[in-house]
Amino acid sequence: MTDDTKDFAPSRRQFLSGAAAAGAGAVAGTAASAAGPDPLITEKQPWAQELGAGVDETPYGLPIKYESDVVRRNVEWLTADPISSINFTPIHALDGTITPQGCAFERHHSGAIELRKEDYRLMINGLVDKPLIFTYDDLERFPRENHVYFCECAANTGMEWAGAQLNGAQFTHGMVHNMEYTGVTLRTLLEEAGLDTAGDLKDKWVYVEGADASSNGRSIPMEKALDDCLVAFKANGEALRMEHGYPVRLVVPGWEGNMWVKWLRRIEVTDHAVESREETSKYTDTLEDGTSRKWTWAMDAKSVITSPSPQMPIKHGKGPLVITGLAWTGRGAITRVDVSKDGGKTWETARLAKPGEKMALTRFYLDTTWDGEEMLLQSRAMDDTGYVQPTKAQLREVRGENSIYHNNCIQTWWVNKDGEAENVEVS
Amino acid sequence: MTDDTKDFAPSRRQFLSGAAAAGAGAVAGTAASAAGPDPLITEKQPWAQELGAGVDETPYGLPIKYESDVVRRNVEWLTADPISSINFTPIHALDGTITPQGCAFERHHSGAIELRKEDYRLMINGLVDKPLIFTYDDLERFPRENHVYFCECAANTGMEWAGAQLNGAQFTHGMVHNMEYTGVTLRTLLEEAGLDTAGDLKDKWVYVEGADASSNGRSIPMEKALDDCLVAFKANGEALRMEHGYPVRLVVPGWEGNMWVKWLRRIEVTDHAVESREETSKYTDTLEDGTSRKWTWAMDAKSVITSPSPQMPIKHGKGPLVITGLAWTGRGAITRVDVSKDGGKTWETARLAKPGEKMALTRFYLDTTWDGEEMLLQSRAMDDTGYVQPTKAQLREVRGENSIYHNNCIQTWWVNKDGEAENVEVS
Repeated sequence: MTDDTKDFAPSRRQFLSGAAAAGAGAVAGTAASAAGPDPLITEKQPWAQELGAGVDETPYGLPIKYESDVVRRNVEWLTADPISSINFTPIHALDGTITPQGCAFERHHSGAIELRKEDYRLMINGLVDKPLIFTYDDLERFPRENHVYFCECAANTGMEWAGAQLNGAQFTHGMVHNMEYTGVTLRTLLEEAGLDTAGDLKDKWVYVEGADASSNGRSIPMEKALDDCLVAFKANGEALRMEHGYPVRLVVPGWEGNMWVKWLRRIEVTDHAVESREETSKYTDTLEDGTSRKWTWAMDAKSVITSPSPQMPIKHGKGPLVITGLAWTGRGAITRVDVSKDGGKTWETARLAKPGEKMALTRFYLDTTWDGEEMLLQSRAMDDTGYVQPTKAQLREVRGENSIYHNNCIQTWWVNKDGEAENVEVS
Repeated sequence: MTDDTKDFAPSRRQFLSGAAAAGAGAVAGTAASAAGPDPLITEKQPWAQELGAGVDETPYGLPIKYESDVVRRNVEWLTADPISSINFTPIHALDGTITPQGCAFERHHSGAIELRKEDYRLMINGLVDKPLIFTYDDLERFPRENHVYFCECAANTGMEWAGAQLNGAQFTHGMVHNMEYTGVTLRTLLEEAGLDTAGDLKDKWVYVEGADASSNGRSIPMEKALDDCLVAFKANGEALRMEHGYPVRLVVPGWEGNMWVKWLRRIEVTDHAVESREETSKYTDTLEDGTSRKWTWAMDAKSVITSPSPQMPIKHGKGPLVITGLAWTGRGAITRVDVSKDGGKTWETARLAKPGEKMALTRFYLDTTWDGEEMLLQSRAMDDTGYVQPTKAQLREVRGENSIYHNNCIQTWWVNKDGEAENVEVS
C-alpha cells in the first residue's frame, strides 16, 4: 500500500469535495404511508430475489467489500521504510470499544515475524532460583486470566507537537487498540522460576525481549511486573495475529506499547535497568532545556472525537447529531469526558457508554443538535486520579516542543458549515 | 468446504491418533542453566536473522497460517444445502469471551446477501402514529449504546437429543457467539415513529423481517421490544460482516438467534403475533404427548467445557491441567459454574474469569491436576434466577425426545488415559 494520507494533507478539502451536506430535515426518517403499497418495494430496495452465500463459502470471513476503506493505513513519509514503521487503526470508522485484530495498528522494529507454536520457547533467567524454559504448551498449563486493555504507542499523536499536521483521527490518534487478552500473569511465571515475590524486591527489574531481529528489549520495574502484566496468547478470543506477536506477547496495562514485547522470548530478572536503545535514544522525552525525561511509561489520560472528524464529515446537514469518541488513561479508569463545540470556551459533559474500566478504552457520546454553524470540536478526558487532559498550550508549557512521545493534549477539529472537518490548532 | 466433520464421527478416535500424550513432568517448564550459554540460541529457536513483514503489507489482517484449522465448519449432512444451513464457531480453540466476527457461526435461511448502506432502508409501520422509513445515515443520528451479548441458535446442541452424536464442542455447542454491539435501541425508533410507550401496550407485538429472500419474519412481544432490543450496525467495533446482517441487524438479548433478524428491513407494530413459518412449523418444541411448546424465546442457562474436549485432547500427560469452558444464560447473568470429573457424582466450583454479565458469555476455569486416569468431564451452570443447568435425563423427563431446539443439558466428555476425549452420554 502506498501513501494513503496524501489525500489528507496538505490539501485536505479535496478529500471532502464529494461529501456536500445533504440538507436533511431536523427529524430523521422519511414519512411512509402505512395504508399505501409497501414503500420498500421499489426499484431501489426490492426484497432479495435471489439466494445469497452459503455457510460453506467463508470458513474465516473478512469485512464486506463496501467497507474496504476501513483498514490500517501507513504514512510513507513518516519512516525510512515500512519494516521499522507504524500503521494506524481506522478509529474514525469504528464504534464501541473493541478493536478487531485485523485492523488494530502495528508497530514493528524489524518487521512482523512468523513463529510456529512448536518452535516457540520462553526463557526466564537471571536472578531467579530456577531458570526455566517454557514451551507454548507449558504456558497453557498455568491459570489464565481475561482482561480488556488498550495498547497505545508512545508516539501516538507525536506529529502534533509541531502543530496541526495529519488530517484524520486515524492518523493523529490511531496508534491505539483495545482487545480482550487471555494469558498467564507474569507473576505466576516468575514465581514458577523461583522468584521470592514476598522477599525484598526493591530495585529489582525484569528485562524483556522479543524473538524478532530487533529484540526490542525493555526494562520493567518489578513492582509493575508483579502487578498486572500478562503473558498473553489470545486477543479477542482467538490466537494473536502474526503482527500482534503470535504466539505470545507481553501485555503491560496502561504503559507505552513499546514495552508490550511481541514474540516474547526472554525475561531476565535483574538488579538494574538495562538502559537499552529503546529506553535511552528512543522513548525518552527531551525537554525545552535539553534534558530528557526517561521512564515515562504510563500513558496519561487522553481522548479524541472520532466522528465528526476529517475522515467522517457531517453529511446530513443540521439537526440531530451524534458526536462520539474514545477516551483512555494508563493510570486507572476514565471518569468523565467533556465536549466543547467552541474550542474550549464552554463544555458539555458527554455520556459514557459504560463506566470507565481500568486501562481500557471508554466510548463517549454527546447526543446533540447541530445548528449548521461552524464548530471547533474538542474533547477533554478526566480519570480517577483527578487528572484532567491538558490543552496543547499547557502541555507545551511543561514539556516544550522537542518531544516526540506522550502527546496527550486536547485535539481540535474545525467543522465548517458544510460539515467538513479539519485538524486545526487553537490558541 | 466439504464435510469437515467426517473425521469426528463416527470413528472418532482416528482424529486423535496423532495426539498421544507427551508425558510431560508434573511441573511445567524445562530447567535452564542460567550460567551456561543462552539455551535459546539453538538450531530450533534462533533469534530472527531476517526482517519480517512491513506495516504496508496487510491493510486488513487474517489469522496466521498456522491457525488455519480455527475456522467455522459446516456439517454437510445436517441440511439439504448450504444456503439454508448453519456453520459452527470453533469454540474449542477460542479463549476469553469475545468471538471474532470472522469465525462466529452463521445461520442463513436463504443465504447471506450483499446490501449496500446506500440502498438500505428500514421501515417502521403498523400501529404507529407516524410510519417512517429510515436510511442508514438516519440511524446514525440517534443515541447509540454498546453492549456485549451472546447469540445462540435455538438448535444449538439439538443433535444431542438423540444421544451423543457430534464429536467436538465446536459441533455440539458452536452455534453461539458473543460480540460487542453498537446500535440504537428499538425503543428509540418505535418512539420516533410515534408509538406511545407510556400507553396501553398489552397484547402489542412487533413483527420483524429481513431483506433476504426468506424474510425470516418473527413476532416479538412489545415488552421485550421496548426492554433491551438493539438495532445494531457494529459488532466488535467495526461494521457487521455480510454474514451477520450488514449493514443492520436486530439484537434480541438472551433470546434465540432466529429472532436476531439480519439485513433488518421492516418492523411492524401489531396487536397479535403473526404466527409465521419460523414460529410455528419451526422453532417450536414438540413434547412427548405430541403437543408443542411455542414462544420458547429465552435461551436457558447452559455451559460446555471447551478444553479438554474431542478436538482439544490433553497432550501433556498428567500434572497441572487447565479445564476451561463457557457458560451463558438468556435470563440474566451466570453466578456459578461447577465442574465434575466423574460424570456428575462430585463437583468442584470453577473460577469465573469475570463476574457473569447479563446475556453475555462467561468464561470459567478449573485449575487442577490430572492424575492420568479416565475422566467423565461435565460442567453445570447456574444463573441469578436460581436456575441450575439440568442433566440430559432431567431434560428428557420434562421435554421427551421429540425436540430439536432448546437443548441446554449438561454435556459429558469422556477423557481416556491418553488424554483423548469423546462425546458420551452418562446414565
